[in-house]
Amino acid sequence: MIVDLSDEEARAALPLKWGAVEPGVLPAWVAEMDYALAPAVAEAVAGAVRRGLAGYPPFGDAGVGAAFAGFARRHWGWSPPEDASVVVGDVIAGIRLVLETICPPGPVVVPLPCYPPFRDVVALAGREMVPIDLDPDATDAALDLERVEAAFRGGARTLLLCNPHNPLGRVPSRTELQALAELARRYDARVVADEIHGPLVLPGPHGTDGPVFTPYLDVDERAVLVTSHSKTFNTAGLHTAQVVCLDPADLARLRGVLLPQNHAYSPLGMIAARVAWSDCDDWHAALVRRLGEQRDLLAELVASHLPDARTRPLEATYLAWLDLRAYGSDDPAAAALAHGVKVAPGSDYQPGLPGHVRVNIATSPDRLEAVVTRLAKALAG
Amino acid sequence: MIVDLSDEEARAALPLKWGAVEPGVLPAWVAEMDYALAPAVAEAVAGAVRRGLAGYPPFGDAGVGAAFAGFARRHWGWSPPEDASVVVGDVIAGIRLVLETICPPGPVVVPLPCYPPFRDVVALAGREMVPIDLDPDATDAALDLERVEAAFRGGARTLLLCNPHNPLGRVPSRTELQALAELARRYDARVVADEIHGPLVLPGPHGTDGPVFTPYLDVDERAVLVTSHSKTFNTAGLHTAQVVCLDPADLARLRGVLLPQNHAYSPLGMIAARVAWSDCDDWHAALVRRLGEQRDLLAELVASHLPDARTRPLEATYLAWLDLRAYGSDDPAAAALAHGVKVAPGSDYQPGLPGHVRVNIATSPDRLEAVVTRLAKALAG
Repeated sequence: MIVDLSDEEARAALPLKWGAVEPGVLPAWVAEMDYALAPAVAEAVAGAVRRGLAGYPPFGDAGVGAAFAGFARRHWGWSPPEDASVVVGDVIAGIRLVLETICPPGPVVVPLPCYPPFRDVVALAGREMVPIDLDPDATDAALDLERVEAAFRGGARTLLLCNPHNPLGRVPSRTELQALAELARRYDARVVADEIHGPLVLPGPHGTDGPVFTPYLDVDERAVLVTSHSKTFNTAGLHTAQVVCLDPADLARLRGVLLPQNHAYSPLGMIAARVAWSDCDDWHAALVRRLGEQRDLLAELVASHLPDARTRPLEATYLAWLDLRAYGSDDPAAAALAHGVKVAPGSDYQPGLPGHVRVNIATSPDRLEAVVTRLAKALAG
Repeated sequence: MIVDLSDEEARAALPLKWGAVEPGVLPAWVAEMDYALAPAVAEAVAGAVRRGLAGYPPFGDAGVGAAFAGFARRHWGWSPPEDASVVVGDVIAGIRLVLETICPPGPVVVPLPCYPPFRDVVALAGREMVPIDLDPDATDAALDLERVEAAFRGGARTLLLCNPHNPLGRVPSRTELQALAELARRYDARVVADEIHGPLVLPGPHGTDGPVFTPYLDVDERAVLVTSHSKTFNTAGLHTAQVVCLDPADLARLRGVLLPQNHAYSPLGMIAARVAWSDCDDWHAALVRRLGEQRDLLAELVASHLPDARTRPLEATYLAWLDLRAYGSDDPAAAALAHGVKVAPGSDYQPGLPGHVRVNIATSPDRLEAVVTRLAKALAG
């Protein structure tokens, strides 16, 4: 059910991921998958274009909120209201919008490593950033709540949460999230949760049961959720994501902004979102099974070829975080590129952090094997 | 070659324009055309989706700047550099970007009436707006250069030009634009020219020669052009426009912004832009002929049914500006809606202006006749 793209097909379908590398170089950097689109999504979007749909999106959310609520109910046993979504262009546009409109004034806490545009969007919104660096030698990569509390005590009133975490691949437990919620409540702070990877919680090793995903809004109703079908369905270019929040006054504020503040979503993306959230459960199940297999393969390959690499359990996402400091290269991504594989440097996610890379495993088993062996060769040489 | 959509087809293809009205009401408001897409554009975009293209856009402009340069050369005898375009999500996103990055500090001059998001984007960029209202009784709707000069003298250093003008439908002469350029030079001010309607200059009445479009950058090389194929080709939802400027340092600044500041364009829109600018000259010629006929029909219909309406020559765009003050209704758009036609109130374009409407004529002759007769009935009743 998951169809691997050939190199030639991937170059046509993924112009950023594959277009940024010379022929022969394997792209394992940006978060896109080397798989064909879910057929129902591709057919719905192509059919809409053939019927002439290329103009302005409709007023309202065209059923995107209801479709997401159905997905959340079926997959996570969580029932957000169907009318609690505001459509936006993408997750970062959504974060910019909520920072500009409904987040309390004051600095913004950003746990690191993080998706780099998190830092950019805080700067663009004119907010001070309070980074919380992860100690790369920490046994566990849980959010350090003492440092969060110190930031709140120092005046921060917003925190950008990535749940599940990119690039750490970690799924926080409900208990952990409840503790964060308690802290946010105590300081009247607002958590903005990017849950674009929520549908990408993987099975456990070798098909065992995996961790359970907890939607953060389910433990903190004052929070704001920003999500999209786009990471799971490879449709970032269709520009449709959604902000979900439960407070009617906040929703009214988000819906009442000036047009240029939120007009980057597309009618094709709204169709893709509706179909993806509603009609693709079988494809989605096949995808997470396949990504679980890729993750198991990665573990074997790393054990064989990069035995001194330090990894963290990849519980969600298709992005593996590798600590390669043992190999002595400060910039293993640059070394890898010279050996035919493009991975993302860890310092993009945590500035100043040496020796780490993020590797995209959403490709074929053969390519993944080549990615790891080339990386090993780069570090050996 | 121009294919009219049936009501049912239009409702499916244009969810904003047709979705905002009850069945039976004719939508002649937002600037979208009730015509099928240019076949080459629809095929290129639908084909790309079928091949799996829905992800991130490539680095660079993927040939959009070169395709636009070709169009400009063939249609206007103007040869902008092929590498002078920066792709953005839409014209307003482009204006926001240039206001945030390369426009001098100080207030922004906005001639009114104007496309309403012009005012919003100035506010969003945190700039003071200096409006220049058009006197609705002025014989000519030319830009009042004395008032522009007064604004520059008062400290304004940016002017938003709409060329050709929406909603006035006017094509300024080269001489007029040269006089504006001379003023901008004298005060070291920057003109940001929205030329999305540049390809929609119409033939003269009954197929005679029409006015000549002058790209503003051709008379003021310090200006910034923001344009898109999207108005001419009905593809606003694909989110691709372009900022064109000639100064390498400005281009570097525009290209060097943080990702969230310019990431709303889509790979499908870039394909549509390339095909539209390069391979659709016959369709484009048929479109402007057809729109010229619609404009001639509008003149007849207005003469018969709304003899006291005051119109200005519709030289470009498919948006007619009607002064209906003679009929005594302050809000003729509201009256029209009650009689089965949705037109845009003039006060959206020039706040406080009574008795005007903007009418979208890009539909079938039958619908246009119904639009005008219903409007006349509304004003009679």
